Amino acid sequence: MTIPELTDVHPAWLPPEAFRAIGSRRALVLGDGALTGTVHDEVAAACARYGGSAERAGDGPFDLVLALTTAGPLPQVAAAIAAEAGPIGEEGYVLARRDGVTAVLASDPAGLLYGLFHLVRLGEPAFGAARPVERHEPAMRRRMLDHWDNIDVHPVMGQVERGYAGGSIFWRDGVLREDLTRVRAYGRLLAACGINAVAINNVNVHATEAHLLTDRLGEVAAIAAELRPYGIRVHVSVNFASPMALGGLPTADPLDEDVRRWWAATTARVYETIPDFGGYVVKADSEGQPGPFAYGRSHADGANLLAGALAPHGGVVHWRAFVYNHRQDWRDRSTDRARAAYDHFAPLDGSFRDNAILQVKYGPMDFQPREPVSPVIAAMPETRLAVEFQVTQEYTGQQKHVCYLAPLWRELLDFRPWGRDGRDVADVATELVAVSNVGDDAYWTGHPLAQANLYAFGRLAWDPRLAPDTVLDEWIDLTFAPAAEPLRRTLHTIMDGSWRTYERYTAPLGVGFMVRPGHHYGPDVDGYEYTPWGTYHFADRDGVGVDRTRATGTGYTGQYPRPWSDVYESLEQCPDELLLFFHHVPYGHVLRGGATVIQHIYDTHFAGADEVAEMRTHWDKLEGLADPALHTRVQELLDEQLRCAQEWRDQVNAYFFRKSGVPDAHGRRIP
Amino acid sequence: MTIPELTDVHPAWLPPEAFRAIGSRRALVLGDGALTGTVHDEVAAACARYGGSAERAGDGPFDLVLALTTAGPLPQVAAAIAAEAGPIGEEGYVLARRDGVTAVLASDPAGLLYGLFHLVRLGEPAFGAARPVERHEPAMRRRMLDHWDNIDVHPVMGQVERGYAGGSIFWRDGVLREDLTRVRAYGRLLAACGINAVAINNVNVHATEAHLLTDRLGEVAAIAAELRPYGIRVHVSVNFASPMALGGLPTADPLDEDVRRWWAATTARVYETIPDFGGYVVKADSEGQPGPFAYGRSHADGANLLAGALAPHGGVVHWRAFVYNHRQDWRDRSTDRARAAYDHFAPLDGSFRDNAILQVKYGPMDFQPREPVSPVIAAMPETRLAVEFQVTQEYTGQQKHVCYLAPLWRELLDFRPWGRDGRDVADVATELVAVSNVGDDAYWTGHPLAQANLYAFGRLAWDPRLAPDTVLDEWIDLTFAPAAEPLRRTLHTIMDGSWRTYERYTAPLGVGFMVRPGHHYGPDVDGYEYTPWGTYHFADRDGVGVDRTRATGTGYTGQYPRPWSDVYESLEQCPDELLLFFHHVPYGHVLRGGATVIQHIYDTHFAGADEVAEMRTHWDKLEGLADPALHTRVQELLDEQLRCAQEWRDQVNAYFFRKSGVPDAHGRRIP
Repeated sequence: MTIPELTDVHPAWLPPEAFRAIGSRRALVLGDGALTGTVHDEVAAACARYGGSAERAGDGPFDLVLALTTAGPLPQVAAAIAAEAGPIGEEGYVLARRDGVTAVLASDPAGLLYGLFHLVRLGEPAFGAARPVERHEPAMRRRMLDHWDNIDVHPVMGQVERGYAGGSIFWRDGVLREDLTRVRAYGRLLAACGINAVAINNVNVHATEAHLLTDRLGEVAAIAAELRPYGIRVHVSVNFASPMALGGLPTADPLDEDVRRWWAATTARVYETIPDFGGYVVKADSEGQPGPFAYGRSHADGANLLAGALAPHGGVVHWRAFVYNHRQDWRDRSTDRARAAYDHFAPLDGSFRDNAILQVKYGPMDFQPREPVSPVIAAMPETRLAVEFQVTQEYTGQQKHVCYLAPLWRELLDFRPWGRDGRDVADVATELVAVSNVGDDAYWTGHPLAQANLYAFGRLAWDPRLAPDTVLDEWIDLTFAPAAEPLRRTLHTIMDGSWRTYERYTAPLGVGFMVRPGHHYGPDVDGYEYTPWGTYHFADRDGVGVDRTRATGTGYTGQYPRPWSDVYESLEQCPDELLLFFHHVPYGHVLRGGATVIQHIYDTHFAGADEVAEMRTHWDKLEGLADPALHTRVQELLDEQLRCAQEWRDQVNAYFFRKSGVPDAHGRRIP
Repeated sequence: MTIPELTDVHPAWLPPEAFRAIGSRRALVLGDGALTGTVHDEVAAACARYGGSAERAGDGPFDLVLALTTAGPLPQVAAAIAAEAGPIGEEGYVLARRDGVTAVLASDPAGLLYGLFHLVRLGEPAFGAARPVERHEPAMRRRMLDHWDNIDVHPVMGQVERGYAGGSIFWRDGVLREDLTRVRAYGRLLAACGINAVAINNVNVHATEAHLLTDRLGEVAAIAAELRPYGIRVHVSVNFASPMALGGLPTADPLDEDVRRWWAATTARVYETIPDFGGYVVKADSEGQPGPFAYGRSHADGANLLAGALAPHGGVVHWRAFVYNHRQDWRDRSTDRARAAYDHFAPLDGSFRDNAILQVKYGPMDFQPREPVSPVIAAMPETRLAVEFQVTQEYTGQQKHVCYLAPLWRELLDFRPWGRDGRDVADVATELVAVSNVGDDAYWTGHPLAQANLYAFGRLAWDPRLAPDTVLDEWIDLTFAPAAEPLRRTLHTIMDGSWRTYERYTAPLGVGFMVRPGHHYGPDVDGYEYTPWGTYHFADRDGVGVDRTRATGTGYTGQYPRPWSDVYESLEQCPDELLLFFHHVPYGHVLRGGATVIQHIYDTHFAGADEVAEMRTHWDKLEGLADPALHTRVQELLDEQLRCAQEWRDQVNAYFFRKSGVPDAHGRRIP
């Protein structure tokens, strides 16, 4: 296999330099299977560049052995390490160095591939001092990216829904791209951070895209062929009404026998074409998509229908729990969108088939910069749950703003629904899934620094205990290898706290939204206030926030187990950063942090915009240390971020000053 | 010529029945010229249907004589009437009946055509008792509709910008329609209400549409050929940068000799193809359109450039005065969009060529349901002014709401800028121009009752002294001929006050906007509050409105002559309906009408929504009296209007209740 090399596209975290340490070694790659071939070809390509050698057999001596433990007699050092390591789990690997030999061992080829990329991350230190046996196994069996790519350019949503990095890397204006080299290069980047599954099309499945399941299956196969060498399975988003739209049936009722048969036969044909096909992703009964409710069936009925069709072939269905009334009457204060997923799905716990995975957004609303963890995650012990993140920055600056999301994900994964001594989200989640932020942009992600979010998501899906700054260091070292210390320091200064900075200058205290309707960029405090979307802040001249208590509000706090059901219920105990998500309070309410709500709003918004100005100053100083084109791109984007942050600051402050009449305690100008 | 007859399209105000009285007569049509031919063919078609006869010569006896006074010896009665009438002005006609003969006489064929349609309006009474000589001449030489039609479907604005009646009747998806019968039928409808000029394409001239001036001129010619038999000249919106975009010149500087030559040569070619071409319409330096400012030139320089090119051929340029900063910083309270047109154009008075017509929107902002009359209209005595109305209901319900606009136009035309004894707008305006509301919808205008706006605009452009209810009666009689009395009464009940009803449930007291940004439909009180568009209401917890006084505000009141500069300046004298346009007042401010501002907001919004509910009840009772399909269409639209009016009511009331904290004096529910 030829290792994909792209001109005119940024190499992201796999520049040739990242392979220097490996490429200058005498390497042995042992074992069968296509992915072992990929490992060899990667090593060989690196060696061709940096003067090393890559063998598939021989007596050595070798500096580096990458071997399947099943590959027959191993070189002596490797055999000793294998013996010490014992059994290695699926997709896992062990790594050690002794007697001048670095060995990566795995029991399956995918593990060897991930071990190779671990070596890439280590770089030269992998070949220095002796290293004891380290064992690496993925915490999640499936580490998945969802693409919201359309085949046709959607009149409102464009080629990629919520995409901020250009067009789709798969399709262009209604047809599969002729040259899919970039797809393979994408797969390579994903494998290097641990991703092993990609859903290639939008969960809002429009008419054209529905045909990927049948007469356009060849396009799926072509994409699968590009991703397969990097251990990535392809999944497809399907329309629940496909039996009608594609099969000509009069119904899509999940309990209808003809419907069952249609899905079984259709799925069988998919597997004839793509034997390692991953499965289906479904958004049903949500924001206009069809679903089982039309037939009076439950979402378990719906999910199990597809799971049943997929089970004989080893496939899975990802069934999204994003079901709510998007035609809510804003005048009706008794309905609470935050309650919807729990109300719909918690009663179904235990009724999903084994290969049906319920895909739950991390929060109860919709990928806000700050939400409480979704109560669904603690409510369905008998269900396989995939927790869904959003790498694409729909509500977090749309890849025009620096917003390093790993710290947000860290907090979510660390959340302990049952309190201090219970399991955390990382324990509960069977999988992590995220919406991709990649398009055909030269930097893959629009904002060059947004690459770090994609990288970090993969790494956290592999190991959800990783620290955000560690992951950022990995990304910096790979991407800017060798990273000059000033560059590294500045990137940390800019990125480490960027999510909190973003939070400061946008919607305050967890109340969310306040974005421009439709495109979701930039401030509009009342933008969603009188809409059917269920996303309100209820600000009036006296106070702001949503009363979700059991005592006086929507009762949403009751969806959490203790202690959180009590903590969130309590005005005194509720964490400041979520106060307005759970409570409606007067502007003079004093936060645990000591400030009043109104003063907190002013302070954080002034601070957030100031922090962006500082980011920009820091970045300016990197001129000459980063690639000039990349430096300029980030500089321009920081200009826009600063403009937008100031707009947020001024609109939010002006809005609340006009409503509350309370002047800033520090006398700063509020327009 | 074949009189266009359309199937599947509503005949609007020219159903066959409207021609019954003419069609059952023995008619003589005398005179030369194509339009006289049209008159004959119209009469002949009516006679073929209703049993009369249409001659171009002969001794009679005749019931009806339609004759050019220049046509040689007239029949005796007609000759006597002509002698009594004396000279008849351009496009005018006289009408009389004596000795059993109805005569319509004109000195030019266009006058004869308008006289024919006057007969259509009269119907049977034209052939009853004797009628003294009536003289009809148009008050305005040019009575014009602007189409905002695009050739290509614009990704945001669609085929017709601000069009609410389907696609363009001229183009479809990038090409001229093959069958232009409908364009001819459109011309016929327009002639019947007095329109004599149509600009066929959007004033925002995009890349494709710019080519109408050159290589796509054939399409203009084809449209002109359809409209010509009804006395309508075609005008084209042009891009000021055409010399660069189409001519390959390095500049579009209006004082550049090559630019002048390019426009002269290009215009000459237009007239070679279309000898009766009307001229150009230009939106320059406005909302992103190019203009003379780029070269440091004035708008007089720009307009005179095109006027110079058109003058040798008898054409005119309509130069829009809609120039303002659409990238205003909302934080900057010193800039006032309302001032912009006056500030830009008043100093240029007297510097425009005779065939340059300054086209001024009726108000200083943008077609709001309530605005003061634009001060530009009183500020440019040495300039030909076209006053621009908007028949398309961009801000007045988008042809989903019944909003009969003639009462609005009546008020505008009656406004006396110099006070009680001075001239009014109808005196000052050289022309009336309006944006068309027509598309390829089966009812032409989406809402069947919106046809009345198109009809009324034409009639007011012909005779700006007409009363709205008179015009409505004309329209009812023609459209629903013979109108049953209950139908007529109900249509008056619904339509006469519909503009004021619309005003009641939308933005209060002249402050304007509060619509959803972008599409401009439905309420969004803060939708434009923090935008660059210069359209603000400045509501805070204490009060609302824009201070445009000289004393403490933007000084806009000073753009009016006395007495209005003083009346608007004065909080006591300012008319209630414009109070918030001119003043920022506390919610407790007592209006001249006696209510406080806040209570007025509540009262009008409850009343407005209630009135729509009543409209709907009235309409329901017409079932069986109107065509069933039309009745159903209007019924469905009234449902939507009611929903939307209630949404306006609740959002506006909730917004101001939340801000002011003042409860409704009558204890009604505010959500």
